[in-house]
Amino acid sequence: MKQIKIKREDLESFCAKVFEYHKLSKLDALSSAKVLVAADARGIPSHGVGRLRRYISGLINGLMNPLAKYEVIKDTPISIVINANGAMGAPVSVSTMNKVIDKANKTGVSFGSVKESNHFGIAGYYASMALKHDMIGVAMTNTAALGVPTFSSKVMFGTNPIAFAAPADKEGEFILDMSTTVITRGKIELYKKIGKDLPIGWAVGKDGKSAIEPEILLDDMFNRIGGGILPIGGEGEEFGGHKGYGLAVMVDILCSILCGASSGPDISDTATSSARVSHFFGAIKIDNFRNPVDFRKDMDKMLSKLRKCNPVEGQKQVYYAGSKEKEKEEETHKFGVPLLENVYNDLCLIAKECNIMIPLVIK
Amino acid sequence: MKQIKIKREDLESFCAKVFEYHKLSKLDALSSAKVLVAADARGIPSHGVGRLRRYISGLINGLMNPLAKYEVIKDTPISIVINANGAMGAPVSVSTMNKVIDKANKTGVSFGSVKESNHFGIAGYYASMALKHDMIGVAMTNTAALGVPTFSSKVMFGTNPIAFAAPADKEGEFILDMSTTVITRGKIELYKKIGKDLPIGWAVGKDGKSAIEPEILLDDMFNRIGGGILPIGGEGEEFGGHKGYGLAVMVDILCSILCGASSGPDISDTATSSARVSHFFGAIKIDNFRNPVDFRKDMDKMLSKLRKCNPVEGQKQVYYAGSKEKEKEEETHKFGVPLLENVYNDLCLIAKECNIMIPLVIK
Repeated sequence: MKQIKIKREDLESFCAKVFEYHKLSKLDALSSAKVLVAADARGIPSHGVGRLRRYISGLINGLMNPLAKYEVIKDTPISIVINANGAMGAPVSVSTMNKVIDKANKTGVSFGSVKESNHFGIAGYYASMALKHDMIGVAMTNTAALGVPTFSSKVMFGTNPIAFAAPADKEGEFILDMSTTVITRGKIELYKKIGKDLPIGWAVGKDGKSAIEPEILLDDMFNRIGGGILPIGGEGEEFGGHKGYGLAVMVDILCSILCGASSGPDISDTATSSARVSHFFGAIKIDNFRNPVDFRKDMDKMLSKLRKCNPVEGQKQVYYAGSKEKEKEEETHKFGVPLLENVYNDLCLIAKECNIMIPLVIK
Repeated sequence: MKQIKIKREDLESFCAKVFEYHKLSKLDALSSAKVLVAADARGIPSHGVGRLRRYISGLINGLMNPLAKYEVIKDTPISIVINANGAMGAPVSVSTMNKVIDKANKTGVSFGSVKESNHFGIAGYYASMALKHDMIGVAMTNTAALGVPTFSSKVMFGTNPIAFAAPADKEGEFILDMSTTVITRGKIELYKKIGKDLPIGWAVGKDGKSAIEPEILLDDMFNRIGGGILPIGGEGEEFGGHKGYGLAVMVDILCSILCGASSGPDISDTATSSARVSHFFGAIKIDNFRNPVDFRKDMDKMLSKLRKCNPVEGQKQVYYAGSKEKEKEEETHKFGVPLLENVYNDLCLIAKECNIMIPLVIK
């Protein structure tokens, strides 16, 4: 499919205007836009402006409240618990991660929980916010239940991503941002679109056997008839499926049980919007352990060693978490943010609906 | 193979005497014994008294120093960094986790790093120490490099386990304790012993292709010729192998880079003993987020829902992390700690060498 390229700032300012049109404050609109465009810029289009339509739906149908006031439920020197009261996920997450970083600056470490929130985009965005403060950053979220426990075909937890960021020097940084399921729902939707069978090891159907047909699986999952995505490690225990399952539940404990939010199968999407979810954020100041300059130097050594490993036959390069995304981001900086034609076309429609100029395309 | 059963306390006191014979202090000997026997009691014999011979070798050949004094390198209200100076892994880990818990009791959260340490047994033991204080516990360690990055056949990190423990009420607790590689080396050694081919998806050989023959793989890994165990998610990216790889590196960052210890391929075992490694511990006090009584109630709800999921055909039961181990521990409490005959026979030899009575076998 054809690719259209747009300058990052232009795309951000466009998305911000769309959010403002839908009643978000200037500040919240800009936060939301930055998180969304960062995904496209880093080569993660599944979480990019292609989701703008879903966010707009959420704002229109009331699942996301553009004027929601965040409520502080608990506030200690090392923790903060916030009820987002149905706000957009991105701005309340940016604001909470900033508070977590402020506290960690004073105490050395801090964590934050957010309940009654919505889809927050890429978890790695928030974890990375800690980097420039010489901190290690952590971000997690639960999601609508799509994943099955080992030995079951009932969805009991979300794709529950974990993000972990640590600063380096020349290598930039290490940013792990991973769902704890083998794949996310978007991948199954893609296979449905292109009419391809699912590989064995991604998901099980309602009968507990490998799910092959994406359309049937998506229907059964949506209607909660049975079947769902496998945790990392796949089916059963032979390849460590129980480990991915454990990680997914760990994320749910930190995101929901720790602040008293809904968890597991109680979280579900609707046809037009995503579910109310909860998040967990953390920041650890490196100088509580050692000089951050030395830390970053040792990170460089470790990461460059990984990058310079000989690749196996048929592969060009060995990566580490975040290095592919960094390459993409540098490319974006030079040539603009790449969008698929259908995503761009939808942005044009949104522009018309909101009476906003569509940003210039880079020729 | 025949199983022999021994009362837990008797087995602990035997191991403690063995460690005392090898010059550990009474306290350190008992800590080491408790950690070791806990593994057998929880159904994780790979980390149990079957390893006693390796520990003795380490103490005899000097890799582990029974009289090492731990040195505090950094001490803040929320962190502690310790140089174990080559001590046994278990006692310095118990002592550090206790300090981490004490600090968390005052500040709400705390982390500890230990460098220049040795094999510490099951990570879950230390994470669980937080439970009775109504805290969430975390423990990690790096290990000798055995795992290959996605797209490489060079070992660059260990099996790097993550343990995470959170308290519940009737359900007891959630204790995740997982290596971040598909399997550990012990599994390959077992396949060598029984003369079985490795399943595709566990490891790659020096040529970067699936390793089938355990003997060749073990030799090539030991001599660092190439080949190693795959991270969770398996080979390539299709099933999320890059996620397991990212988690393994994350553990190495927290265990080694954060305290300035050796990392990745710089850590290796010898023929008779395990490598010098480093650990990371954490404790988060739940009442900084919500009332721990409510937390535990919600944990019960979540965990019992998981336990009660209908199992797929051919399976009896759905578990959650730690529930199998809990069942085993209750069995052990009634019937004694089960040991394989060859392990018991080795204990008899050790008893003779140290001139210590072998504990009574339960008839």
